[in-house]
Amino acid sequence: MADAKYDVAGIGNAIVDVLANVPDDFLQSEGLNKGAMQLIDADQAETLYSKIPPAIEASGGSAANTVADLASLGGVGSFMGKVRDDQLGDIFSHDLKAIGVQYSTPAATSGPATARCIVLVTNDGERTLNTYLGACVAFGPDDVDTGIIADSQVTYLEGYLFDPPAAKEAFFKAADAAHAAGRQVSLSLSDPFCVDRYRDEFRAFIKEHVDVLCANEDEIKSLYQVDSFDDAANMVREECGISALTRGAEGSVVVAGSATVAVAAEKVSKVVDTTGAGDAYAAGFLFGLTHGKDHAECARLGGIAAAEVISHFGARPETELKTLI
Amino acid sequence: MADAKYDVAGIGNAIVDVLANVPDDFLQSEGLNKGAMQLIDADQAETLYSKIPPAIEASGGSAANTVADLASLGGVGSFMGKVRDDQLGDIFSHDLKAIGVQYSTPAATSGPATARCIVLVTNDGERTLNTYLGACVAFGPDDVDTGIIADSQVTYLEGYLFDPPAAKEAFFKAADAAHAAGRQVSLSLSDPFCVDRYRDEFRAFIKEHVDVLCANEDEIKSLYQVDSFDDAANMVREECGISALTRGAEGSVVVAGSATVAVAAEKVSKVVDTTGAGDAYAAGFLFGLTHGKDHAECARLGGIAAAEVISHFGARPETELKTLI
Repeated sequence: MADAKYDVAGIGNAIVDVLANVPDDFLQSEGLNKGAMQLIDADQAETLYSKIPPAIEASGGSAANTVADLASLGGVGSFMGKVRDDQLGDIFSHDLKAIGVQYSTPAATSGPATARCIVLVTNDGERTLNTYLGACVAFGPDDVDTGIIADSQVTYLEGYLFDPPAAKEAFFKAADAAHAAGRQVSLSLSDPFCVDRYRDEFRAFIKEHVDVLCANEDEIKSLYQVDSFDDAANMVREECGISALTRGAEGSVVVAGSATVAVAAEKVSKVVDTTGAGDAYAAGFLFGLTHGKDHAECARLGGIAAAEVISHFGARPETELKTLI
Repeated sequence: MADAKYDVAGIGNAIVDVLANVPDDFLQSEGLNKGAMQLIDADQAETLYSKIPPAIEASGGSAANTVADLASLGGVGSFMGKVRDDQLGDIFSHDLKAIGVQYSTPAATSGPATARCIVLVTNDGERTLNTYLGACVAFGPDDVDTGIIADSQVTYLEGYLFDPPAAKEAFFKAADAAHAAGRQVSLSLSDPFCVDRYRDEFRAFIKEHVDVLCANEDEIKSLYQVDSFDDAANMVREECGISALTRGAEGSVVVAGSATVAVAAEKVSKVVDTTGAGDAYAAGFLFGLTHGKDHAECARLGGIAAAEVISHFGARPETELKTLI
């Protein structure tokens, strides 16, 4: 097979994060499910925003974070996702290109504004996500650049793409294009509630299309509706070639065929904000995989990237990740 | 005199900061004057933005930072300044109101976008400011709420207001309104190059109108075109009732009549980003002054607020300042 120009092509919702620290009782009084991602509409976003403390804005989006982190590790990434031609869209686009990611999905010139995620960070470092999808609903199959996908070792899809209907179509088109070109497909399960919304479809998609699955413990247990991590790991072993499963402070487990590789988490002096932890892990793992590393080393690289990201506020690295590996 | 509803009414440019870390040689290759504020037009802003690394966005503006910090200290502040009715304007407005500042200047519905300041932070924590004034040029005398000024113990004006011509008119109107109501006027000199642009006017204004002057060492030396801090301090002593003069790591000096009070700087384990340090000092000083504290205590409060702000990225406090005093 021809060499690939890109290590990873990420496809996901193009989102600017609005990050604020809140006390736990704010989540309770707003009826928010701590640690989860909930979708909100424009009015709900405005109402919630009016209630939160001063915030900072930083580019986010799950797969976008992953390809940004991959670039920070020294990898070559591309991203497909839809913003509006507005100020937040400019910010999203700037930050991705500035870190070295190829990004050329045309911005929507009408319709909803660029997507925002109100990220509420509690004292324990946990983040609760409230996403207004905005212009992401305009991302569709026509935005999938099959040429770039054919030129990428791995096409990485975020599960959140199932939420905007046209994006879901794009998701399948991208997976087909990757396999038609003899490339690999990776999926992130994104969120246990997202898994809940699309469990059967995710399972079918994984069996048929996914070469590398990224998920955390809650997500993989939700996928198979089991209470035990080991049970879930053994179920995914039968259905997917490589599964990189994160377990928070307990590190991660890579399940591939008959092999199971457990790697301890990197030490972090203080967990400030877990936003983007899973995205960073996926970046490290895929960077390793596309650079010929074994699964243990891939997991270690994922852990290093995640440790950097959770040690400060915001989803993307403050320190160039390639200096840490 | 009647009690005042507000401790401080701040008037200034309404700006959203775009903060990025850059190496020193980036400043050199772009011909930027390290540590200073330079004005740039829309095209220059776009060009510079395209060259900087990934950034975060956070509300800024000198006087706006000061009233935000004052609110964080437990004081009651109001702000007047102009944004456009765009996404960055919404961010600016949200962050000011969310911290407890009264803010009701109507957003411009046409004309330039909300002002942005590209803040380039080098490894030593120094910040270099590149300001596109945008909608700030639409702030004029009609935006000065003389009722609020009459109801504020101190009206605080940033020297940067001299840059947009209509804002300068508003500046004089505000000072007149404050004194007509028997209130005090405070001025920040903002930047040594700003002082250079308007030296004679600043000197005349200070002599006639300013009760409390806030300046750093470079600014006060620039104002009087002298090389010695002590000479500058003795010159301002003759022209202004109270002058709070900051000297970076050496702390601050308050000059008032025949008295000179020097207060050491608060200890900071690492200076991460000096953006907003002077604004925070002014907030602490004015909080003390409007709460009956002596000048040494006012300077100490200023030092505490500045120390918090320079210990992290971004101009506004991450920790509620009232918990630190």
